[in-house]
Amino acid sequence: MAGKKVLIVYAHQEPKSFNGSLLKIAVEELTKQGCSVTVSDLYAMQFEPRATRNDIVGHLHNPEAFNYGVETWEAYKRGGLSKDLVEEQKKVQEADLLIFQFPLFWFNMPAILKGWMDRVLVQGFAYDLSKAYDGGLLQGKLCLFSFTTGGSKEKYATRGDIRYLLWPMQHGIMHFCGVKVLAPHICYAPESVSEEKRKEMLTAWTQRLKTLWKEEPIDCSPEWYFK
Amino acid sequence: MAGKKVLIVYAHQEPKSFNGSLLKIAVEELTKQGCSVTVSDLYAMQFEPRATRNDIVGHLHNPEAFNYGVETWEAYKRGGLSKDLVEEQKKVQEADLLIFQFPLFWFNMPAILKGWMDRVLVQGFAYDLSKAYDGGLLQGKLCLFSFTTGGSKEKYATRGDIRYLLWPMQHGIMHFCGVKVLAPHICYAPESVSEEKRKEMLTAWTQRLKTLWKEEPIDCSPEWYFK
Repeated sequence: MAGKKVLIVYAHQEPKSFNGSLLKIAVEELTKQGCSVTVSDLYAMQFEPRATRNDIVGHLHNPEAFNYGVETWEAYKRGGLSKDLVEEQKKVQEADLLIFQFPLFWFNMPAILKGWMDRVLVQGFAYDLSKAYDGGLLQGKLCLFSFTTGGSKEKYATRGDIRYLLWPMQHGIMHFCGVKVLAPHICYAPESVSEEKRKEMLTAWTQRLKTLWKEEPIDCSPEWYFK
Repeated sequence: MAGKKVLIVYAHQEPKSFNGSLLKIAVEELTKQGCSVTVSDLYAMQFEPRATRNDIVGHLHNPEAFNYGVETWEAYKRGGLSKDLVEEQKKVQEADLLIFQFPLFWFNMPAILKGWMDRVLVQGFAYDLSKAYDGGLLQGKLCLFSFTTGGSKEKYATRGDIRYLLWPMQHGIMHFCGVKVLAPHICYAPESVSEEKRKEMLTAWTQRLKTLWKEEPIDCSPEWYFK
């Protein structure tokens, strides 16, 4: 879809990794479609995951007792968030589609990516008191969680559905901000499979990207996750 | 229970916060019981949440393509993990009970605490190829997730059960490592309620701690979370 803007938030240390290959494919394929693609390469940027007082430039609203949520909300309103956050927010604001590319760490995203969520999606910017879920401030955007696992599909299936672990990230974060969620893209155990299987997984990602803009978002209700 | 060792992993920036009060209560009450209590105050320690090459001292197993899981596993086996990780692992090893005290950020733990999980619980130390779940390497230990929320209990209930978001942290991390999980301790919206209600919540935590050692762990199966 020519003209669409895509932000890929990428959390892997190694460009030669399978995640690195998935990133490369997404950049190439989406660029070929005429999209404008921006990448936030979190490890390369040495992105700060810790939510601290350093995120607020200048005075605090209440220096007596530091409250991160209140302080970042107030700082957002007066334009007093730290430069790295303002830059990420600008990228999010401009994007039509957010792709999160990462290896699953402990049934969840790596801390560096969780820190991006914690610090970038502040109140006032991503949601507000009565502006959440379908009324979230980032409505009109799409997102897609694309990740690799260590364990096989069969191993995950023995302990319940992999959709269970998507609830906090897809529903609790993106849906809360009003972002529509596309089906996740999961590459199971790329390190444990054959070179041929790995190539198949890369091809499948390319293929999916070709028709991505025609996809309908998932129904982000509890039923989708837990049936 | 005199003689028991407790590690509290604490993730809040402000000692005067409600989380700070919950921490203080736990330290005082458990010490009074004769427990030996250690606190990892992650923000005060400026704990590093990012999983990088810096976690490995000396040479890499495969410098051609950095793989964090493989490198930390190899480094663990040869005693080559960075000092901050070795110190945290020693605290975990000695503990009978792990308490995680934090404010819920985006249906999950704050990035600084997720980083503690990502970096401390490495293969070889917390689990191994065929040593997971009931056979996990940290078996014999208990844990408890104690957290505060921004939203009210009613607000959480409108979007499914709060147990849904406990799955990745309780089952995906602690149960995977063989740690038995006590029922979570949730303080809803302490910032939005009356001073009296806040005091009641603090008293309830003190009371729970008094009989904590008599509690049975939860059944950490999908049924507990999703019924």
